[in-house]
Amino acid sequence: MSIVLGDNQYGKAENRVVRIYRDGPRHEIRDINVSTSLRGDFTDAHQTGNQALVLPTDTQKNTCFAYAKQKGIGEIEDYALDLGRHFVDDVGPVEGARIEVDEYAWDRIVVNGDEHDHAWTRRGGEVRTTIVTIEGEDAWVVSGLKDLTLLKSTGSEFWGYLKDEYTTLAETHDRVLATSLTARWRYSQLDQPWGRTYADVRQILLEQFAQVHSLALQQTLWEMGKAVLEAHPTIVEIKLSAPNKHHFLVNLAPFGVDNSGEVFHAADRPYGLIECTVTHDDAPDAGRAWHTVPAFA
Amino acid sequence: MSIVLGDNQYGKAENRVVRIYRDGPRHEIRDINVSTSLRGDFTDAHQTGNQALVLPTDTQKNTCFAYAKQKGIGEIEDYALDLGRHFVDDVGPVEGARIEVDEYAWDRIVVNGDEHDHAWTRRGGEVRTTIVTIEGEDAWVVSGLKDLTLLKSTGSEFWGYLKDEYTTLAETHDRVLATSLTARWRYSQLDQPWGRTYADVRQILLEQFAQVHSLALQQTLWEMGKAVLEAHPTIVEIKLSAPNKHHFLVNLAPFGVDNSGEVFHAADRPYGLIECTVTHDDAPDAGRAWHTVPAFA
Amino acid sequence: MSIVLGDNQYGKAENRVVRIYRDGPRHEIRDINVSTSLRGDFTDAHQTGNQALVLPTDTQKNTCFAYAKQKGIGEIEDYALDLGRHFVDDVGPVEGARIEVDEYAWDRIVVNGDEHDHAWTRRGGEVRTTIVTIEGEDAWVVSGLKDLTLLKSTGSEFWGYLKDEYTTLAETHDRVLATSLTARWRYSQLDQPWGRTYADVRQILLEQFAQVHSLALQQTLWEMGKAVLEAHPTIVEIKLSAPNKHHFLVNLAPFGVDNSGEVFHAADRPYGLIECTVTHDDAPDAGRAWHTVPAFA
Amino acid sequence: MSIVLGDNQYGKAENRVVRIYRDGPRHEIRDINVSTSLRGDFTDAHQTGNQALVLPTDTQKNTCFAYAKQKGIGEIEDYALDLGRHFVDDVGPVEGARIEVDEYAWDRIVVNGDEHDHAWTRRGGEVRTTIVTIEGEDAWVVSGLKDLTLLKSTGSEFWGYLKDEYTTLAETHDRVLATSLTARWRYSQLDQPWGRTYADVRQILLEQFAQVHSLALQQTLWEMGKAVLEAHPTIVEIKLSAPNKHHFLVNLAPFGVDNSGEVFHAADRPYGLIECTVTHDDAPDAGRAWHTVPAFA
Repeated sequence: MSIVLGDNQYGKAENRVVRIYRDGPRHEIRDINVSTSLRGDFTDAHQTGNQALVLPTDTQKNTCFAYAKQKGIGEIEDYALDLGRHFVDDVGPVEGARIEVDEYAWDRIVVNGDEHDHAWTRRGGEVRTTIVTIEGEDAWVVSGLKDLTLLKSTGSEFWGYLKDEYTTLAETHDRVLATSLTARWRYSQLDQPWGRTYADVRQILLEQFAQVHSLALQQTLWEMGKAVLEAHPTIVEIKLSAPNKHHFLVNLAPFGVDNSGEVFHAADRPYGLIECTVTHDDAPDAGRAWHTVPAFA
Repeated sequence: MSIVLGDNQYGKAENRVVRIYRDGPRHEIRDINVSTSLRGDFTDAHQTGNQALVLPTDTQKNTCFAYAKQKGIGEIEDYALDLGRHFVDDVGPVEGARIEVDEYAWDRIVVNGDEHDHAWTRRGGEVRTTIVTIEGEDAWVVSGLKDLTLLKSTGSEFWGYLKDEYTTLAETHDRVLATSLTARWRYSQLDQPWGRTYADVRQILLEQFAQVHSLALQQTLWEMGKAVLEAHPTIVEIKLSAPNKHHFLVNLAPFGVDNSGEVFHAADRPYGLIECTVTHDDAPDAGRAWHTVPAFA
Repeated sequence: MSIVLGDNQYGKAENRVVRIYRDGPRHEIRDINVSTSLRGDFTDAHQTGNQALVLPTDTQKNTCFAYAKQKGIGEIEDYALDLGRHFVDDVGPVEGARIEVDEYAWDRIVVNGDEHDHAWTRRGGEVRTTIVTIEGEDAWVVSGLKDLTLLKSTGSEFWGYLKDEYTTLAETHDRVLATSLTARWRYSQLDQPWGRTYADVRQILLEQFAQVHSLALQQTLWEMGKAVLEAHPTIVEIKLSAPNKHHFLVNLAPFGVDNSGEVFHAADRPYGLIECTVTHDDAPDAGRAWHTVPAFA
Repeated sequence: MSIVLGDNQYGKAENRVVRIYRDGPRHEIRDINVSTSLRGDFTDAHQTGNQALVLPTDTQKNTCFAYAKQKGIGEIEDYALDLGRHFVDDVGPVEGARIEVDEYAWDRIVVNGDEHDHAWTRRGGEVRTTIVTIEGEDAWVVSGLKDLTLLKSTGSEFWGYLKDEYTTLAETHDRVLATSLTARWRYSQLDQPWGRTYADVRQILLEQFAQVHSLALQQTLWEMGKAVLEAHPTIVEIKLSAPNKHHFLVNLAPFGVDNSGEVFHAADRPYGLIECTVTHDDAPDAGRAWHTVPAFA
């Protein structure tokens, strides 16, 4: 029996890169948060302190910024693939890389009905994400979104559930359903119109949330995921994580006031947390696409 | 010399009230965060522990929720005025009240080109705010917004400033200017189209930010404030607080890469913080409209 | 009637300065967060964009770091006084300054019973604070703490309060009382053993919280403030802000389980918020010691 | 090819349970944050909306609170094992469970040299954690800590690393090394003195951080992990995640001030992120002990 080094990775997290395109009077902006992780045989760096095979995290940071100019920031998936492949292909000891990019959207300020050339407001709302994983020749792209806050004020029930001695919840045939959605979907191929697919998946998620008459958040998530996979054959798997942001009907009866689904308390904690995967039964192998090293959630 | 009770107030902070209007198939939503503070002679409650004059914060919370139904939530200013006046007029010992409301905006989900009747996404971006202060018969309304994140990629200079022995900053004639704006404006009268004015002030702030060729954030703020006061005679004072969210040009020269205002590092801390008031020289007295008790910023 | 510039200030917020003293094998550490604001007649900077009187916030930042070496960081009050006086005395147009410093405490790691010379853990818990205000020749020091989280599991009652039609709260003679205290106290003179007084005030606050049999959080705060003023004649005023962090007794009766003050749900929002000032009736004038420019709370 | 439900789980997250032991005059407090997740065949709940096999998350919440009384909260590992086994053993459709508990420490207030019976301050600093995973008859316990902020002001070097065309970092033989450590260690057996082991592991981590002359954060983490495994044969694996919280030496030369490792800027983002696993080469299988369903990091 001996003590050995297991899974490990290292990198520079949360490089806040802003890229302005200013080739003409009408500028463009890209605003991203990039995290890099490199993988390979870094046993020596750990066990003897010898850093000969270690490309500094500072260098990784420099590369993120330099690539924003050299490769540009078009779709975040392409930018991440470029970065990841560079580390794996060009830096000898690096065998794998995980590049994570969040993108923040900006809207042009409208002045007298015209979009301004170089002034924006940050949109808020959901953040577009991608995680690109490279292992030698292979590459996986998992794109997604987070912080998409949704609410429907009817069309949601919850009843007929299992009851035990700790169950006090009343069944309901009409409740508020609200969540802050995180979705991540894995592509089977790399030749994608990333941005157009993103917009389309986002719209499918919204429509399913709105239109599915919900018997449970599980059912809503399933329908969301299924609709995405049906519409996009190159998406082979989607994972959804959805806090059930409880909106409790407030009892106004003590004040002689009726409250028929009108006044709610939006609670912070605890919250339900529903998580699921919708996939093809013959989905190609995911490799380490979903893998984070110290599997900390 | 003796030890005495000075300024004090108490209330219930951050009541998360959600109101659904469901009179027909097309629902409406109002999503607010309400904080109440009551003022008066509460010396006994402090010095002897006698609570006979103290309306519990729990009761204040109940009132916030009940009023969401009884008075409804139209404009947050009206809702806050109703609440504040109720406490001052109907609860004997209460002489003054400060009601603060934040409102979160929601957008209808669009399905097949049509706005959905009862499903929304939370907009993100700026939060609409109001602070209503009641003192006996008097009332002040200070409305505003916060978290309005703005950026312009050119049209901003900074040079000709004072230099001392600690000055190393290089002058610039073209920089990125970005901020997350907090604005609060005080009305001279209570008979206002609150929502329409809000939308108009917000638009003026955006347009000034976009259009003023900036020699300093101070100048931009002044022009923003002045334009608001000029357009709205019933607004007698506006206060602006604007972090200068630095975007530092990254030096790519070591990699043989030119960077002419294209790649920036968006820094977190420290940040500049520019704060100013634009007012009428004959503005009516503000009473305690801007006053928080333990003046903690 | 004309539009004029009102209160204004500008500076560099949240300079994260860490100072290591390494004169011998046993190092010392000071870890602070410094925000500067300068005041004066900066009308031109706002109205014409002329920055000739404006010392850049970048220079202010440089000064914070340089002073950490030149003046050192002993007591944060002295460091802030040095900084503030420098800006007011040495920089022509600056007439006033507000310097705010937060200090984070570190504990030495103990190895084999001995404190380590150069390795620490950050203590967590409360943050020590000071706000120094300079106006010309005058100076005020307001020291304090924040994030001091306190809880007592008995010795707290709440009953005999005012009731109206919205009151549903049950009276209680035994409850959990918990808060996260912010305290700020103003000194009447600048020749103080700052650190020793800080430690003593902190201890008084803790002892009063523990020992006062509480009939309301108001009463507890009053006794805390009074005890501080009685023990420290050079402290002429103290302001306390205390969220009532509600711990709700959970109803376990449906499961046939008794719960006599044993199991609580610690709620997030809403929370009570009790704020008060305890002062001397002949306290010297505070000038703008408590003043923040756009009075945003 | 068909679309199928993949990995899924559901539960109630962040139940904030506070337990007071009040059997005598000297009370005890336990303050925890509990998240439950249940696993099993919940296909119907997703695909048809039939909730017959779904124990509501509200019931899971109730059970967390009821067990705080019925089983008590001694060691968080035992409490989590009790909860997890209850769900798997007593609730028919549940085949697996993941129970995560964070514990916040409180210190007694000291009055006149004596520890108070029922008043505390929250300690701050690191949070003790556990994740218990149950699969049928099997159980895994992964205990740990997070938010343990450490700094050493010397005894850390970084040089001899790999350089490429994007490398600009200067080598150093003396730097500040700081991190906010997350550690999680997996036990091979369930009969453990959990609290005593926790305290001992924490101390080993601190001592190694302090005493290892660091050639890289990787090396420090390896030595920390190895020392834990050597001292505790029942710990078969430890995962460490450590942001490199950069402290940049400030250039004071422009002001004629020397800065030999004394004044630093503590940066926020980006930060290095070093993650590794130290394990036994014959460690027993981890099952899904490290597994979170939508593997979101």
